[in-house]
Amino acid sequence: MPQPPANNLFAGIPEEIQDEVIEVLLKTPGFHLERVISAGQATPPGQWYDQESHEWVVLLSGAAGLLFEGEVEVRVLRPGDYLLIPAHRRHRVAWTDPVQKTVWLALHYRDSAA
Amino acid sequence: MPQPPANNLFAGIPEEIQDEVIEVLLKTPGFHLERVISAGQATPPGQWYDQESHEWVVLLSGAAGLLFEGEVEVRVLRPGDYLLIPAHRRHRVAWTDPVQKTVWLALHYRDSAA
Repeated sequence: MPQPPANNLFAGIPEEIQDEVIEVLLKTPGFHLERVISAGQATPPGQWYDQESHEWVVLLSGAAGLLFEGEVEVRVLRPGDYLLIPAHRRHRVAWTDPVQKTVWLALHYRDSAA
Repeated sequence: MPQPPANNLFAGIPEEIQDEVIEVLLKTPGFHLERVISAGQATPPGQWYDQESHEWVVLLSGAAGLLFEGEVEVRVLRPGDYLLIPAHRRHRVAWTDPVQKTVWLALHYRDSAA
């Protein structure tokens, strides 16, 4: 009796991506887990993410540059690299891999869940 | 000014592993996130995991076979494969890759967080 295959984080990736593709994999009142696919997108110049939630994020394929406000140097993320972005820690995606798709797994959570 | 590198899920993997290596990456009262490294380990014959928490798990390297109680066929997991194991859904790890290390990311959470 064949079992239903598991879902795969690297499956179902569109060939052409205009904007980042965000898919919620799991959602509870305390957190939500997303797959994000980037294809060369970056945060528009001068814009910063300023999030209500904490974000634990891991890059699984491709590459990206992440800049935190007040820092000079962009942090380069390669597959397997993960970090925690505290709520309201302003940051921007400086660049993502223009050739290979960049797949992220992002866990957003609030202190109320903590 | 060089920035501290991000941590990497594939770094710091011991060459020799007797038992599975479990490392808590993030912990709140509502959930905890673990990296698990297997090197050929399996759940002892006749034993089942029966967990209080739900577990969302993704296999990131290596391979594994997961058997759920009441199912005949082992589900084979390859890199990127993920699934949700509801609390008290009895299951066992039938096998893990005997050659390459198997790296898992596991998110354990309770309904109280939901």
